[in-house]
Amino acid sequence: MAEDKLVYFFGNNETDGNGQMTNLLGGKGANLAEMANLGVPVPPGFTISTDVCIYYLKNNKYPDGLIEQVNNSIKKLEQVSSKKFGDSDNPLLLSVRSGAKASMPGMMDTVLNLGLNDESVKGLAKKTDNPRFAYDSYRRFLSMFADVVLGISYNKFEDTLEKKKCELGVKLDTELSVDDLKDIVEKFKSIIKKCTGKPFTQDPKEHLQMAIDAVFSSWNNQRAIKYRNLHGIPHSWGTAVNIQTMVYGNMGETSGTGVAFTRDPGTGEKNCFGEYLINAQGEDVVAGIRTPESIETLEKSMPDVYEQLVDIFNKLEEHFKDMQDIEFTIEEGKLYILQTRTGKRSAASAIRIAVDMVDEGLIDKRTAVMRLEPKQVDQMLHPMIKPDSICKVIATGLAASPGAAVGKVVFSADHAEDMEKKGENTIMVRTETSPEDIGGMHAAEGILTVRGGMTSHAAVVARGMGKPCVAGCSDIVIDASSSFFMVDDIKVKEGDYISIDGTTGRVILGQVEVEAPGVSEYLEVLLKWADEIRDINIRTNADTPSDATTAREFGAEGIGLCRTEHMFFGDDRIPVVREMIMAEDENERRTALAKLQPMQKDDFIGIFKAMKNYPVTIRLLDPPLHEFLPRLEELESKLVKLECDKDKKRKEIKKVRKLIERVEAVKEINPMLGHRGCRLGITFPEIYEMQVKAIIEAACELECDGTKVIPEIMIPLVSDAKELAIVKEEISEVAERVMKEHGMDVEYLIGTMIELPRAALTADKISKHADFFSFGTNDLTQTTFGFSRDDAGKYLPLYIEKQILDIDPFVSLDQEGVGELIKIGIQKGRMGNINLKVGICGEHGGEPTSIKFGYACGLDYVSCSPFRVPIARLAAAQAKIESE
Amino acid sequence: MAEDKLVYFFGNNETDGNGQMTNLLGGKGANLAEMANLGVPVPPGFTISTDVCIYYLKNNKYPDGLIEQVNNSIKKLEQVSSKKFGDSDNPLLLSVRSGAKASMPGMMDTVLNLGLNDESVKGLAKKTDNPRFAYDSYRRFLSMFADVVLGISYNKFEDTLEKKKCELGVKLDTELSVDDLKDIVEKFKSIIKKCTGKPFTQDPKEHLQMAIDAVFSSWNNQRAIKYRNLHGIPHSWGTAVNIQTMVYGNMGETSGTGVAFTRDPGTGEKNCFGEYLINAQGEDVVAGIRTPESIETLEKSMPDVYEQLVDIFNKLEEHFKDMQDIEFTIEEGKLYILQTRTGKRSAASAIRIAVDMVDEGLIDKRTAVMRLEPKQVDQMLHPMIKPDSICKVIATGLAASPGAAVGKVVFSADHAEDMEKKGENTIMVRTETSPEDIGGMHAAEGILTVRGGMTSHAAVVARGMGKPCVAGCSDIVIDASSSFFMVDDIKVKEGDYISIDGTTGRVILGQVEVEAPGVSEYLEVLLKWADEIRDINIRTNADTPSDATTAREFGAEGIGLCRTEHMFFGDDRIPVVREMIMAEDENERRTALAKLQPMQKDDFIGIFKAMKNYPVTIRLLDPPLHEFLPRLEELESKLVKLECDKDKKRKEIKKVRKLIERVEAVKEINPMLGHRGCRLGITFPEIYEMQVKAIIEAACELECDGTKVIPEIMIPLVSDAKELAIVKEEISEVAERVMKEHGMDVEYLIGTMIELPRAALTADKISKHADFFSFGTNDLTQTTFGFSRDDAGKYLPLYIEKQILDIDPFVSLDQEGVGELIKIGIQKGRMGNINLKVGICGEHGGEPTSIKFGYACGLDYVSCSPFRVPIARLAAAQAKIESE
Repeated sequence: MAEDKLVYFFGNNETDGNGQMTNLLGGKGANLAEMANLGVPVPPGFTISTDVCIYYLKNNKYPDGLIEQVNNSIKKLEQVSSKKFGDSDNPLLLSVRSGAKASMPGMMDTVLNLGLNDESVKGLAKKTDNPRFAYDSYRRFLSMFADVVLGISYNKFEDTLEKKKCELGVKLDTELSVDDLKDIVEKFKSIIKKCTGKPFTQDPKEHLQMAIDAVFSSWNNQRAIKYRNLHGIPHSWGTAVNIQTMVYGNMGETSGTGVAFTRDPGTGEKNCFGEYLINAQGEDVVAGIRTPESIETLEKSMPDVYEQLVDIFNKLEEHFKDMQDIEFTIEEGKLYILQTRTGKRSAASAIRIAVDMVDEGLIDKRTAVMRLEPKQVDQMLHPMIKPDSICKVIATGLAASPGAAVGKVVFSADHAEDMEKKGENTIMVRTETSPEDIGGMHAAEGILTVRGGMTSHAAVVARGMGKPCVAGCSDIVIDASSSFFMVDDIKVKEGDYISIDGTTGRVILGQVEVEAPGVSEYLEVLLKWADEIRDINIRTNADTPSDATTAREFGAEGIGLCRTEHMFFGDDRIPVVREMIMAEDENERRTALAKLQPMQKDDFIGIFKAMKNYPVTIRLLDPPLHEFLPRLEELESKLVKLECDKDKKRKEIKKVRKLIERVEAVKEINPMLGHRGCRLGITFPEIYEMQVKAIIEAACELECDGTKVIPEIMIPLVSDAKELAIVKEEISEVAERVMKEHGMDVEYLIGTMIELPRAALTADKISKHADFFSFGTNDLTQTTFGFSRDDAGKYLPLYIEKQILDIDPFVSLDQEGVGELIKIGIQKGRMGNINLKVGICGEHGGEPTSIKFGYACGLDYVSCSPFRVPIARLAAAQAKIESE
Repeated sequence: MAEDKLVYFFGNNETDGNGQMTNLLGGKGANLAEMANLGVPVPPGFTISTDVCIYYLKNNKYPDGLIEQVNNSIKKLEQVSSKKFGDSDNPLLLSVRSGAKASMPGMMDTVLNLGLNDESVKGLAKKTDNPRFAYDSYRRFLSMFADVVLGISYNKFEDTLEKKKCELGVKLDTELSVDDLKDIVEKFKSIIKKCTGKPFTQDPKEHLQMAIDAVFSSWNNQRAIKYRNLHGIPHSWGTAVNIQTMVYGNMGETSGTGVAFTRDPGTGEKNCFGEYLINAQGEDVVAGIRTPESIETLEKSMPDVYEQLVDIFNKLEEHFKDMQDIEFTIEEGKLYILQTRTGKRSAASAIRIAVDMVDEGLIDKRTAVMRLEPKQVDQMLHPMIKPDSICKVIATGLAASPGAAVGKVVFSADHAEDMEKKGENTIMVRTETSPEDIGGMHAAEGILTVRGGMTSHAAVVARGMGKPCVAGCSDIVIDASSSFFMVDDIKVKEGDYISIDGTTGRVILGQVEVEAPGVSEYLEVLLKWADEIRDINIRTNADTPSDATTAREFGAEGIGLCRTEHMFFGDDRIPVVREMIMAEDENERRTALAKLQPMQKDDFIGIFKAMKNYPVTIRLLDPPLHEFLPRLEELESKLVKLECDKDKKRKEIKKVRKLIERVEAVKEINPMLGHRGCRLGITFPEIYEMQVKAIIEAACELECDGTKVIPEIMIPLVSDAKELAIVKEEISEVAERVMKEHGMDVEYLIGTMIELPRAALTADKISKHADFFSFGTNDLTQTTFGFSRDDAGKYLPLYIEKQILDIDPFVSLDQEGVGELIKIGIQKGRMGNINLKVGICGEHGGEPTSIKFGYACGLDYVSCSPFRVPIARLAAAQAKIESE
């Protein structure tokens, strides 16, 4: 290794490295070299490579030639700075910092102000004409060096300092005089002597070598090892060491320090944005004692520096092709850039910057599309709590449906509807919601539930409506009287104002200010670019014409899931639906169905119109019938009350008894695995018959009027090819008959949901009878894991906490288990039917990671709730780019 | 084809074919040839090969040479029989029958008595001195030929005959005189003339050819095509035609006909067994007008024939190596064998014959083991209704647990227990059973339920107890008062006697006679042979020392599933279990668990003792906690009643309220997919801790006393490797601690159930933490299909009826879906851990088809309820033989 280059200089047009050399120089070193190459004024310095670290940790000594190369670099620094290392007149001071390939913030050690000793501190005092600054720097160096290099606890120095301040009766470090500081320096040296058994060495070269040793060794400290284990960073990488000239912003009125963004991180506007302090160090900005000034004022106070800064901004943006977040220091009128990195920004800013940079020719459209986290799009589509609001957060639940809402607490759907009529905003608070609550959910501004996960009824419906929802907020206890709820000691009564933030899960007491969503023109542009790139379709899950219209506005290319059961819960429908369920035989059932049929047809006409020219996938009735009946417990209590009543109402009792009998008959122990989906279609074919009649009649009537309709009929919960074959035959017959009656020929598809493991495992047989598959990943997740989504709240949070699962599998698709079934399902499905169209319509259809996984598996489309369509458009484009 | 052999002669030492030639000669033809080769006297004849059929159906003509070969064969028959085809003095009469490779009973056509015309009928009358017989044969020929060959409806002839009988005032055909028959013959010929437009042809050669045409063509009649589609028989096979000399058992006192078995089909004893009629045709035996005589009497009446028959029996048994069922006819003292086939027999007979034949050197042990249907073993282990009992069957349910039981109807478990104390036998009739009913199930003779399938609680527990059970008998309606049940109009009151047959599913009014099971010495011998052959282990599912002892007696080699929850339901346990569930925090829970711990230890000591030297797999607590609490509806009704009460018992109300609160908190929408299995172990580690402590303490104490114990601890419902890893770490710690305290070192294994699709799909990761896998096929079937076994009764019967599923997947393993997951699970499991032991412990572990499938997948053992252990032993041996 003797011949090798071990040390890389940067600054003063003599830079050895560059930005690509992160393996060798670490992130910080490569970045400093890159800036130096660009002519950006960085405090000059040099980097000792990671190879040296690896060698040192293995052999416990340095490779040959290192000391020489370090000494040569120090000499170069002396030349460049016209200072001298360890000099008593004009000393060169250095910082020694770690810098690995991956950022490991705070994990390894740093020494500042290296180069000071009892002599050079005098030189610094004289040269800067600021003895306070010099001795303050010296005492800082002593404590830092002792801690990092000599392993003496930092507390010892802190205690001494505190004691001194106490004696003097002062509070702030700045109140200490030069003499106080000198005294402290002596005390610090005593501590070192006491702990090491010898006086503090005065040789800066020895200090430097010890500091380098310490930084390399810090690679293997416990914190660092733990951090790497946690973040999957290889232990073999090692760290580089960056040795850099110190610069000071606190050397008078021509010095200063600041931070700046090259564009506005809030709006994305192309303006310098930042703040600075004259005669200050970085830590003063952080301490917040003085109020920093806006960067624009620098134009007046130091016009040359400002001009230089703006030039550097442009240079860095042009080079890194992205908005930069920069730290700078001005030392006696000379500007130094200490760091540049990609700037964090708001969603709005990110979108605007991406679009502007394409216009400026800095990046291409594909890069712009990759710049945005799909989740950031979400922020743009929902009202948000104003960032500077003061929030009294009383509880936190699941962030089940994004957006913020403010309203008076109500505990029932009826109450929410009444309040809406009076023009009052409400938040509906429920233990859990059920299909009967839909009206109330529409009326309320937001929904808060005590139980249920990310795919509970409340969450799914709220997302569909684009309404904020916080679910599974188990800290809340609703009183049985339903006139208040408790969170710890806080009592929130009906009518009290609360606010909820469905983006973060927060529940807030009182009213907070909310910002309206800003679907900017920039987002429109970006999504159009995404559309040009992506090669799978984005559909929506929509059950009403209004949802369908919203989804079209968000760019949906059809409906991937229209749940017909939601149409059965309307006030005008539910009595008829119950009539159908209470029917004693097929004839009675057909009579009730005949009443429902025209209503269903109207539903479909509305939806088809909203989605004209686009496919509409209609799922035939799926849920078990008892979902449409009253709860057994309610009925039983009612019966007992009626029977306790002196004045016995026999007729009423008889009616309730009959209802109980029916509810008993259809109730199930595990409804999720019960008599539902196509099992209903097999046992009561007349139900699907009615629905298909309604679909095809609606289609015929619209096509007759010139509206192009593309119905896709979807059979739910198939577990075996024969089930699908039987139902398909039955409904095809109905469809053919209706078309013949209308003298029309509507093109329609018949497909199935794949939502049971067995369906995926036997997909080759099922696909012979299917034009399309749609993976119902909610149910597939339930059966694959054996997790009831309604009940999983009892253990799933603990599973995440214990890292048994990385993420709730109802939020992001479980690739290992459920994903394996999807892969099997697609592969076998296409074996059985090469033209099979495959999509996904569970909640995962709008979740970026799941979309990317699905894309890799070969999906033709994803379908999600209307408000997630833009996210899906972006994620699909990114998936395509990433796959190339 | 001109040179080819198309016709195969048999009989008279000139037989061309043999028993192997079923492809060419069909089953019947090959069998006749085989018998002829053996020197068994079959009526001579010849077979036209299936090749001819295929040629004929394709080309609509016969291959060259066929007519010639047929004519030559006829000539041979004339020589052999000294009769002449179509002769007016001594006519040769023939039968023409189809005969395909596979048996297709009744699907194709037959013509008998071919060779008769207006002249030869006179010859036959003269020769037999029996004009009645001759003309009766002729009129039968005419109608049969017309129907089969000429396509004239058989009804036309029947009507004519009926009309004639009506005119004569007679009822039976036998009452018709010769003249009556001659008249009928004329009438039949007129019908033929009217329908075909020409007189009935008088040329027997032409008749023969037309009959051959007709038989070949019948291969493609609708019935036959449908039958082949249904049974998977290729349409390309074609049928052979068998043309055989007619023989008659009704030609006087030296003629006769009969059927016989070579051994007793009831007991298996080596005796001729059968019956015959002198001067009769086969159809007379069937008609039952005369009582046939026992075959033994033939020894006196026709000693030569009898001796010849016994010789033939021996010859056939020696040849076919199995008990034969034979049809024979004696024509004027000459014996003809018409058919031989493997004889059907009772289970007892099958076992004895198999064992005897090994002793006689006829077959080897492997063949003997293959001779028995594993299900037949079941018959030997349970009491049966006497075969000749008169049963008033009032309903039929699922044959859920085999055996017959008789007792008085009771509707509650308590009642059953009270009655038992009085020495009364009962049948417990319930809508469905729950764990609280266990005591009553023990006390009752049998269980009858209205709801629930083959794996409902009642069915599973009853099979475990070896107690007869009819489940899911939905025709029964239990009155709410629970003092009677109705089946249609029949009212069965509490205390009335009923009988149930769990082997067939029958529910019988009153008491029937029951036979005790006869575990014969023959069965013992056969099962020992099976044990020598099989190479997988048979374990049992047992939760009590008594079950374990029973299973050992049946040959179980360990316990594959010991369900600890069943131990929690005892009267002394359940209050403590509820105390644990009602606990407000971990401390309270630990206090309750500490009370349970010594009881659990005693349970395990008993079981380990019963299973000493054999492994015992103990499953840690699996069911959701609410199974141990009272039903919510009951509590709510109770509360309402208490509140209606004037004299309010506040304390009582408070207590019920608290219980309701807790039940509400733990109740689940889908308990099957809920907070259970290892999810309990993760959330309440102290429960598993108590159980493992009890297991290891029991093991230490017994080993200390010199009893060898092999505990295998099984974690239920794992869906991810990390779950298992966490629980394993916790329980290993407990086990190590307990062993240290005892100064012992017990060998124990830790494994997991694979009962969720995700567990099978990620088995490679899970197996890294497991010593063994046990497939829980009940739950795996539920999640793979999305079928709740408790609710599937609403549609599963229809699924079987509509042939969507061939068989209830809870009875026989679904190989296509669930089986695919088992294959994946085993393959991946062994990838992760090459020494992984794999078993199966669901209900399928005792079902022969499932055992064979599991064997092919590579299982190391199966585990089933004690009474199914012998079946499993046999099925495992058969699986091994079949795999070779």
